[in-house]
Parts: sequence; C-alpha cells; structure tokens
Amino acid sequence: MQTKVAIQGIKGSFHHQVAEEYFNNDIAVSECLSFDSLVDRLLTREADMGIMAIENSIAGSIIPNYALVDNHELHIIGEYYLQIHHNFMALGGQDVNEIEEVHSHPMALLQCKEFFRKYPHIKLVESVDTAETAKKIHGEQLKNIGAIASKTAARLYELDILAPEIQTINNNSTRFIIVQTSNSVLKKEEINKASLKFELDHKRGSLATVLNVMSDCKLNLTKIQSLPIIETPWMYSFFVDVTFNDYEDYDKAKSILEIMAHDFKVLGEYKNAKI
Amino acid sequence: MQTKVAIQGIKGSFHHQVAEEYFNNDIAVSECLSFDSLVDRLLTREADMGIMAIENSIAGSIIPNYALVDNHELHIIGEYYLQIHHNFMALGGQDVNEIEEVHSHPMALLQCKEFFRKYPHIKLVESVDTAETAKKIHGEQLKNIGAIASKTAARLYELDILAPEIQTINNNSTRFIIVQTSNSVLKKEEINKASLKFELDHKRGSLATVLNVMSDCKLNLTKIQSLPIIETPWMYSFFVDVTFNDYEDYDKAKSILEIMAHDFKVLGEYKNAKI
Repeated sequence: MQTKVAIQGIKGSFHHQVAEEYFNNDIAVSECLSFDSLVDRLLTREADMGIMAIENSIAGSIIPNYALVDNHELHIIGEYYLQIHHNFMALGGQDVNEIEEVHSHPMALLQCKEFFRKYPHIKLVESVDTAETAKKIHGEQLKNIGAIASKTAARLYELDILAPEIQTINNNSTRFIIVQTSNSVLKKEEINKASLKFELDHKRGSLATVLNVMSDCKLNLTKIQSLPIIETPWMYSFFVDVTFNDYEDYDKAKSILEIMAHDFKVLGEYKNAKI
Repeated sequence: MQTKVAIQGIKGSFHHQVAEEYFNNDIAVSECLSFDSLVDRLLTREADMGIMAIENSIAGSIIPNYALVDNHELHIIGEYYLQIHHNFMALGGQDVNEIEEVHSHPMALLQCKEFFRKYPHIKLVESVDTAETAKKIHGEQLKNIGAIASKTAARLYELDILAPEIQTINNNSTRFIIVQTSNSVLKKEEINKASLKFELDHKRGSLATVLNVMSDCKLNLTKIQSLPIIETPWMYSFFVDVTFNDYEDYDKAKSILEIMAHDFKVLGEYKNAKI
C-alpha cells in the first residue's frame, strides 16, 4: 500500500520536493492548504505521515509548527535539509523584458530582490505560495507574469525557466521534519538525534544546570530556542535538539532531565540527517 | 525639535501604537514600507530612532530583524511590550451580516480564525498589512469589506468596530525594540538589561560553559536563540538577553565573555521594560 504523505502547499512546492527526496519509493501526496489542516489529516488518519518546515537558516524557527507538534502529540520520526533554490519562470516563448509582474511568496520575493534590481520594469507582487502562482500561470495561460518557484514547479506546470537560482544568499537551507501520530519504529542503534521540550523557572542558572547535565552525558546541542510560556509569566519553555553517539548516554540524560525540568517531553527520536 | 521616529507600516499599525505609548512627548512619525527601509532611514539620518518588532509570544523571534540590527551596527536603546488586540472593523452603518470579506495580515487572520468560524459567510483574504486595509476601506469607501486592526486604526480611518478584541489567545504580547545609530545615553545605574550576540564552536558543553559564567556573574537569562551561521557549518551564533541588578556584575561577565566567545558583541544596553 502506498504511504499517504501530507504536505503543506500544492504539488511543486518545496514540501513536495522534500516528500519526493525523502521517500524514494512510491508515495501518494496529499496537498494541504495550511499546517493546521496537515495536522488534521494526520489525526483523522487520512494521511500516514506529514512533512513540515521547522526552521530556516535565514528566518529561524517556525515556532507555530513546534506548537502544533507539541499540542497534538505528534512524533518527529525524521528530518530533512533542503537547499532552497529559487527560479524565475513564465509561460514559454517570452523574454525577460516582456514580463511585467512577478508574483510569489513574500519570503521568496525578499530572497530574490537583488536579482530584480536589474529589471526595474518588473513589479514584485506578493502571493500566498510559490507553486500556486506557477500553477495559476499555467492554468490560466497568463502572459507577462512570472513566478518564483522550484524546478519541480516549472516541470509540473510546464513553465520555462528564464533565470535559474536567482536567490541572493546561496546557502538558504530549510530543515523539514517528518511527523506521524505514533512513535518511530527505529531501533535504538539507529537513533542519534532527539528533539526535546522542557520548562524552567526563571531562576538564575537554571538553564546552565540543565545544559551541564546534557554536556556531562555527552549530548551535543544543535539547536536551542527559548519561548516565554504565555499563560505563566516568568516560566520559560525550551525547544532543544541534541545529537549523540550512544543511545545509553541519551537515555541517562533523559532520566535526569525528567526529574530536573518541568514537563520534560520527547518530541521525537530519529536519525540525524546532517553529516 | 521633534524626534523623528521611523516605524514599520503606516499610521494605525501596531508599530505606530508603540511609538505613541513609548514616547509620551511630541514626535514626528515616519512611515516605512519595510524593515529594510526603516534601517535606511536611520543610516541616512532621515530619522533619529526606529521601532522594530523583535519577538512575539506566539510566533517567536523575528530573526531577520536581529540580523538587521547586527549587520548595520544599530544600538538597541530601549524595549516595549505591547499586548496585541485585534478588532473587527468596517465602514459605519453596516451589520456583521453585510460583511462579505475580511482582509488582513495572514498572522492577524490566523489569530482570529476562531471568531470567524461563527460567520462562515465571511471570506478571509490575506493582505500585506493590518492598518493598510483599514486605510483603504476608508479611502475608497469600500462597503461589505472588513478589516482586522488596532483601535488606533479604527480611530484614524473612521471605521466602526463591529467586534472588539476578537483574537483567540488573549495573551499575545509582542516585544518591540527602539534602535538608533549611536549608543544609548543612559547612565550605568539606569541600565539593567542587555542584548548580546556571540558565536561558539560546535563543541560539547561550549554553551553550558558560557551560561555558567553568566550565572556566576548573577545575570538572568530572559531569552536565548541559537542560529546556525550560514557561511560556516558547525558554528553557531547566539542571541541572548540578560537582566541584572548591578552594572558591575554585568561588566565583569562582559570582560570574561569577550575572551571566551568568538565575535562577542553588545547589541544594546537599556532599561528592562518588564516588571
């Protein structure tokens, strides 16, 4: 049976690209209009797994997605890093000078604005999604309008790439997580990364104490993010990712942290995708 | 002479509200269409100070704004916390049932979507800014269209509030920073908070060691955020906010951290706005 994978956005989006690259085998992609509806689809069992962007080397963490994972008791069972390449595309047979407007997601426009300085006649227009515009240009055969989207989008929606890789910062890497409603089936030997959440009082040195335990247990911190707890002033929650060589070390740290921190929670245990 | 304060967005935006509340005296507000242009206006001396949203209790840090402060050598000279209240507004003399569409910033729509579940006939449409839509409704006298914006926007653009405070989460607090190109003129006795940036090797325990120093010097951590350094794999930069009672303690910590961490930098020293 095909694995049903829910993605945020439509086919041709970066989430779709991750789905294709992470699952080499045959999958059925389920397009979701928002991260909320992606989670709904997992909870109602309409999809087996979901793919969510979780942080970006330029924009940082996507905190609302951490909250979705946390609040709906989802399990992170894997991760994937995608280098974001933006391509400028339009219906075939047109020259750059014929393009009057380029529509794309605000973030994509921002990342490509240097490129468009060379073409002041092109108006930048914000749209909701990168692939969506590519699909619309194809569906309605819109001339004089360009999109900024992935190569997959150009292929799917039969657009010509006028300029490839037009992003200003070349090292724009986005980290995606693979989530499901049940725990990972990985063996302990295969696990070398975990995503943790815990809360601490606003007491001097409380975080240092926790990090000392992690360091003593040979855990490497690859990410830390504090967040004030909305309902409880002066309490902070932390999202922390750690890598380790030996599951036993991690297991020991877990036992200590469960005692030391409030609401200690494992959001997922999986294989580190970064070599 | 009036202080020229650059804000992101137009009058009636949340940035405008902060400008009014932070500076009780007479100021001249300078509307900027983006955070980039706000920074430009400071660098060209067209504005004396700027106000930038920097983090939100729901969405987390606005990393690109940290980068702007860092890259352009701006100084944080103050902070302000604003409780975000969203109000549903339209041209006067209309009933909720007459409203067919509500336009607002995606984040505002998201925070009010529970409210609109009761009115399934109203279509939610994304726009670039909250106040912008209010201004447009007023300017073009658009009927049947509502905006989600601040009370200031309703007042400025003469709209009636159909429903006040329609946000789902009531404790939606956004932190703003006040920035300028020169250092703060505060006396040491008045300073009890600082925003720091530093870089660390991806070596086990390196962050714990730094936090131990901070804790030993009686600094309280109010915020921590790691960010991979794009150009240098396995190096991390950290944005950290600390509070303290005694400037001497902080000064001591600074001297140690300058030696321990790479590229240690003070982004600003100011008065803690949270009691």
